[in-house]
Amino acid sequence: MVFSFDLQTTDGRARRGTIRTPHGDIETPAFTPVGTQATVKTLDVDDLHAMKAPVVLANTYHLYLRPGTDVVERHGGLAKFMGWDGPTITDSGGFQVFSLGFGLEHGVSKISNIFPDEDVPERRQSKQKLMKVDDEGVSFRSHLDGSLHRLTAERSVKLQQQIGADIILAFDECTSPLHDERYTARALERTHAWARRSKEAWTNREQQALFGIVQGGAYKGLREQSAQYMNDLDVPGYAIGGSLGRSKQDMYDILDWTTPLLDPSKPRHLLGIGEIGDIFAGVARGVDTFDCVAATRMARNGAVYISPEAGGTAANKFRLNISGAAFADDAGPIDPGCDCKVCATHSRAYIRHLFAANEMLGMRLATIHNLRFVLRLMEEMREVIEEKRFNELAKKWGVAELV
Amino acid sequence: MVFSFDLQTTDGRARRGTIRTPHGDIETPAFTPVGTQATVKTLDVDDLHAMKAPVVLANTYHLYLRPGTDVVERHGGLAKFMGWDGPTITDSGGFQVFSLGFGLEHGVSKISNIFPDEDVPERRQSKQKLMKVDDEGVSFRSHLDGSLHRLTAERSVKLQQQIGADIILAFDECTSPLHDERYTARALERTHAWARRSKEAWTNREQQALFGIVQGGAYKGLREQSAQYMNDLDVPGYAIGGSLGRSKQDMYDILDWTTPLLDPSKPRHLLGIGEIGDIFAGVARGVDTFDCVAATRMARNGAVYISPEAGGTAANKFRLNISGAAFADDAGPIDPGCDCKVCATHSRAYIRHLFAANEMLGMRLATIHNLRFVLRLMEEMREVIEEKRFNELAKKWGVAELV
Repeated sequence: MVFSFDLQTTDGRARRGTIRTPHGDIETPAFTPVGTQATVKTLDVDDLHAMKAPVVLANTYHLYLRPGTDVVERHGGLAKFMGWDGPTITDSGGFQVFSLGFGLEHGVSKISNIFPDEDVPERRQSKQKLMKVDDEGVSFRSHLDGSLHRLTAERSVKLQQQIGADIILAFDECTSPLHDERYTARALERTHAWARRSKEAWTNREQQALFGIVQGGAYKGLREQSAQYMNDLDVPGYAIGGSLGRSKQDMYDILDWTTPLLDPSKPRHLLGIGEIGDIFAGVARGVDTFDCVAATRMARNGAVYISPEAGGTAANKFRLNISGAAFADDAGPIDPGCDCKVCATHSRAYIRHLFAANEMLGMRLATIHNLRFVLRLMEEMREVIEEKRFNELAKKWGVAELV
Repeated sequence: MVFSFDLQTTDGRARRGTIRTPHGDIETPAFTPVGTQATVKTLDVDDLHAMKAPVVLANTYHLYLRPGTDVVERHGGLAKFMGWDGPTITDSGGFQVFSLGFGLEHGVSKISNIFPDEDVPERRQSKQKLMKVDDEGVSFRSHLDGSLHRLTAERSVKLQQQIGADIILAFDECTSPLHDERYTARALERTHAWARRSKEAWTNREQQALFGIVQGGAYKGLREQSAQYMNDLDVPGYAIGGSLGRSKQDMYDILDWTTPLLDPSKPRHLLGIGEIGDIFAGVARGVDTFDCVAATRMARNGAVYISPEAGGTAANKFRLNISGAAFADDAGPIDPGCDCKVCATHSRAYIRHLFAANEMLGMRLATIHNLRFVLRLMEEMREVIEEKRFNELAKKWGVAELV
């Protein structure tokens, strides 16, 4: 097995390690840029290399629908298809199926009919549901064309084998904060059964490492039960996913409940979380890797990261909106302390102009800056953990109360 | 004066030369990527360097409206503002004013009222015109917010001095193929008067070279008269602009009429023309530099250039539409003979996927390919002109009848 995790040192619960994959090492704590559709939006692979991106996460749901996992497979797998030579991760597809389904049906029963031939009143039938879960798997409609599809643990693993990422995730049911404890417990049973079935379907063990996903909503008992289950399942790594509660504090509690129950010799990934304060909180609670679209999505809206030296605070979420008129004549870089190529070359005035003029380059430059900003913060975190100074860094960033 | 043109050799009427500017040399024949709003759409300056772009052309009209030529000036001029260290060109603003004005009013009198306080019937008044020309200059409305503005020769030169490009253009009235000879002659008188006034207003002669613009529509007598006028005006270079007739043949005729009358020791720029066949035809008729949005605009629509070896012909305009389903599984590069980074790294299938999935990266990769494709063709043209084999190259590309 070419996958391994070396835990080098700790500082409190913060961990400094290395994940070794067939496509290279990931130094942890690490942040994973998200390349949903086999591209980190607006960036090419040279951009990813230049910012020292350690790994890219793509979404199985999206690649399955477009261009098709068979196409990705025929073109050598995700990395080769997108021209990337580093490590890759795929999710199980569950999150998109459940979040697009439940999210769009917000407040509507999860068990509604999605099949037009079922016996439902005409009025309800016309409003077709996007997904329907059962113990075996989940049926869902494509958000692209409404076509019907089905995912099971076995199928998710099969699709992820076709995509060929270094790290793949067990199939899970992702619940929402709107689900009650009873439903969440029922979903967790399925998630555990699906994790076991995912492990059984996982045949490509020399090339891909399977991570089990800890679920259980914001319910302490369920989260502990799930962490224990995944720990006992004996897979190469863990992800913490699903509903992380209704507040930041809920999320921190969930991490406090779960990470102590997970085998410390295996890496832990926190799914879909990656704002600055959350990264500090996660690392402080023993999370090794993060993925999140916030840095890139915000960038496309003109929200760019700034460090404490440039006025960033927990209150302003370390951001400023570069498209604001206040920057129309600002000759300085986004962040004087940043080592990204955008800050080396371009003024706030120029980037503001690009956003004002609806030039796509603005989104790309902001994306490069935001990702490099986060990746550099991770580099700094790795250094201070080695030196047992993680709390100092948190203080410097004004987020000491989060760690 | 730091601007000069060295004509090194000729092959028939095709010319091989070097334009020297304060920001570096432009080897000719050359193609100028268009950076309308101080960015070549989707690209950053590293992309321009990697593809060996010799120069960038920006539009005075657009920069005047947004971010303002004063802003560009305060940030060190166009090149510095956009982070580009090579040569730059600006147009006079005339083309946009007249093309947006007349184009949008297609078929409507050019002398219509644009001022709400003038005595016009209510019905017409409500349809405010976008521009109004007089002998002194042109009043126009911004296409962004409808605000009123005025351009004169003196003002155009002043704005271009603020922008600070190496090569600037005299202010001109750009006519349309719909204008008759009488109107075109009247407009030409203004264009000549404005060229003389532009020369008088051109004070920054050590830093910027002024090119006069040959106009006259598709009327032989007017074009000859204009070429003679610009030649006699004794400015550092010439541009051939305006209406180039209703057919490709009209354009070739216009070049045949005009370039022989222009001082061969000065460079000639063909404004807004740059498709493959037209570049061959222009170079064959003594044009040194070209600018055109076709390569970049087409790229954003998925039309990518292919060489004769990859199936490109004059009939298909050396293009294929990469977003077509036919390329969904095509593992080859856009053009196997192309030396751009896109063809070195990415398959047609991947780029097709990016277009199908509405990923901005698709537009950027296609833009990089198309521009490098044209720039490389220009490199090849320079080589064959030196070797007196320009006609051979035209034959190889199947466009011998154009040269």
